[in-house]
Amino acid sequence: MALMVRKYGGSSVADLEKIRNIAKQLVDLRREGNDVVVVLSAMKGETDRLINLAKEINARPNSREMDCLVSIGEQTTVSLMAMALIGMGQDAVSLLGHQAGIHTDNAFGSARIENVDASRVRDELKKGRVVVVAGFQGIDPDENITTLGRGGSDTTAVALAAAVSADICEIFTDVTGVFTTDPNVVPKARKLDRISYDEMMEMASLGAKILEIRSVEYAKNCNVPLHVRSTFSDEQGTMVVKEDKDMEKQVVSGVAYDKNEARLTVTKVPDRPGIAYKILKPISDANIVVDMIIQNTRAEDMTDISFTVPKKDFQTAMELLQGTAKEIGATRVLGDDNISKVSIVGVGMRNHPGVATEMFGVLSQHNINIMMISTSEIKISCVIDEKYTELAVRVLHDAFGLDKELKEAHP
Amino acid sequence: MALMVRKYGGSSVADLEKIRNIAKQLVDLRREGNDVVVVLSAMKGETDRLINLAKEINARPNSREMDCLVSIGEQTTVSLMAMALIGMGQDAVSLLGHQAGIHTDNAFGSARIENVDASRVRDELKKGRVVVVAGFQGIDPDENITTLGRGGSDTTAVALAAAVSADICEIFTDVTGVFTTDPNVVPKARKLDRISYDEMMEMASLGAKILEIRSVEYAKNCNVPLHVRSTFSDEQGTMVVKEDKDMEKQVVSGVAYDKNEARLTVTKVPDRPGIAYKILKPISDANIVVDMIIQNTRAEDMTDISFTVPKKDFQTAMELLQGTAKEIGATRVLGDDNISKVSIVGVGMRNHPGVATEMFGVLSQHNINIMMISTSEIKISCVIDEKYTELAVRVLHDAFGLDKELKEAHP
Repeated sequence: MALMVRKYGGSSVADLEKIRNIAKQLVDLRREGNDVVVVLSAMKGETDRLINLAKEINARPNSREMDCLVSIGEQTTVSLMAMALIGMGQDAVSLLGHQAGIHTDNAFGSARIENVDASRVRDELKKGRVVVVAGFQGIDPDENITTLGRGGSDTTAVALAAAVSADICEIFTDVTGVFTTDPNVVPKARKLDRISYDEMMEMASLGAKILEIRSVEYAKNCNVPLHVRSTFSDEQGTMVVKEDKDMEKQVVSGVAYDKNEARLTVTKVPDRPGIAYKILKPISDANIVVDMIIQNTRAEDMTDISFTVPKKDFQTAMELLQGTAKEIGATRVLGDDNISKVSIVGVGMRNHPGVATEMFGVLSQHNINIMMISTSEIKISCVIDEKYTELAVRVLHDAFGLDKELKEAHP
Repeated sequence: MALMVRKYGGSSVADLEKIRNIAKQLVDLRREGNDVVVVLSAMKGETDRLINLAKEINARPNSREMDCLVSIGEQTTVSLMAMALIGMGQDAVSLLGHQAGIHTDNAFGSARIENVDASRVRDELKKGRVVVVAGFQGIDPDENITTLGRGGSDTTAVALAAAVSADICEIFTDVTGVFTTDPNVVPKARKLDRISYDEMMEMASLGAKILEIRSVEYAKNCNVPLHVRSTFSDEQGTMVVKEDKDMEKQVVSGVAYDKNEARLTVTKVPDRPGIAYKILKPISDANIVVDMIIQNTRAEDMTDISFTVPKKDFQTAMELLQGTAKEIGATRVLGDDNISKVSIVGVGMRNHPGVATEMFGVLSQHNINIMMISTSEIKISCVIDEKYTELAVRVLHDAFGLDKELKEAHP
């Protein structure tokens, strides 16, 4: 007897059979007396199909029109789901972004939810209906359709859960939960029962593709309990919740890796105020997201600056940087796209000094050279040679005892 | 230099190449200084594809959800068209039913337009944009998506043309205009330069599939000049306009036929008040549309009643009628689904007595038996044996001189 928001991703609604199976689960959930809001993504592959269609007619399609087009993916799944439920004798109604009161700014393609007017959702729930909401989409102040960007359906679910004060927001996906690391790399990887919002955000931004980072941030801000679980099994998944004392006992909760970055370095830069700005401005003007930035001081008022960018933007960034280097009189520009970033995450780090040292020690024991380091309060990332990625993940997972339940001491 | 509303049907936007071709025409139209609103249908076959998808998940899909689903067909074409226009350097914006202010009642699947708030359309036109509106769809007072029923895009175009006081509403289709009869049956059939709203409505309801009848009614009420023409040629089409004196000189403007009806007869019905009601009530309760109704008086307070229904409803209607016949003590129920209805239409009939007699004479000269007759002020319809349809159409077309420009005398 709870108010539940459930979100199913594209692989969970990939065909009519899968939609029917989810409908059956929702009918059971209603029979048990729960109020149910369900948020759906487009059928797997559908969004890409629509994007390709758009690019056939215009190589650089207008973003407002693109949002209008791709939003039909979710429109299709929600109406089909409502039909399936009604066919099973369970009253239901589909709501599109604008009908569900998902108000966003007008940043087409990556709009932010500004507020949620859940009055219609509440009304429909009161009628005993399962409310089937199109994820990923909203409406801007001028009534244009917007989309929230890739993975935006997670954010829709969390925002609705917050707006209706749901007891829980369940994110159904094709994995059974959040793991200590990628089980494809480390077969001993363990599913976490619980993880804090902050850890989940770090994991999400570090390449673990389970939850969209904005949705976790939203959940944290509104204190919405998330349950990440599998569409295809009844198994308990991972709860993403507010941090508590117990969690700090675990120094490291997970190991993440990301092979999608490339590193650029410009050497012997005259060390003047504003030089980093000069170097990075053309990069960000080209809409390239810079991740890590390292500046080393050299002798003779010279400095080296390194930074990482998404691999797909590597060539563009190199060309821009070569231009800037000439302008400012820097000596050389180096680039390397055979790198990867390996990170350890855990709220326990805050109270356990020396975790970074241990990480560096473990990597050096296996002759893995560290090219760049960046840290936050609950995360340490190292850039290494790409070919050592799996080895690094395995040895770190082992060293921090992640295959065992709750490990309090250091390795 | 005009304000034009153009509507393109599904075969005109069947693929990206066709969408691109129309976009080119619209760019030219803008260059000539015209303001352009374009209403689009779904790509040919798309609506049927969506209906079949729905029926796979629920044999009798809920009509609200069906409207939500099928409306994506038009959503696809309008966003693609806007992208194509923008790609050609012509600013454009797509508007869905709710964005274009198409307010309807909530009769899902066959909603009626209640009012049009064209303020957004006007604003976008002022910005110099081509406004691309999704046909066939609107929004009800509760913000649910509705559809106007088959052919509803014509009505969208006419309603918008009325709301923005367009100089002309052009309906682009796969034929070059309205013909005196089906050119597949009578190769000598002639394209009409002009036809009155009333004649067009009769032609539409009699089986000429060029324009949706409601759109013609709407155009008549708001006095919107329609131009029916071909997407695939520059040829002048047919103007559908207010009746004028000149039109009355033409006794008959067109010959229409409809093979989609079936006839039911119940004989020796006790001739009491309310007997027709008793017979027809179960039929209309089953949502079967009755077209012609004929009652003949017999001797001995007995009467025969015949009526026609759509061929697809023939079996259901027969079963219902057999039940009623037993109840009221009628002798026999007869059915015939090998019939067709042949009609002549023309505003000139009003001032030319004897046109019906001539029609019957022509048919009898060719040994075509007339089973039922129905007339309106500007139309005479005869039900005949289906196998004589083409013959009847040909001889009537000849007899009333429809292959020649303006014929004033009788045959």
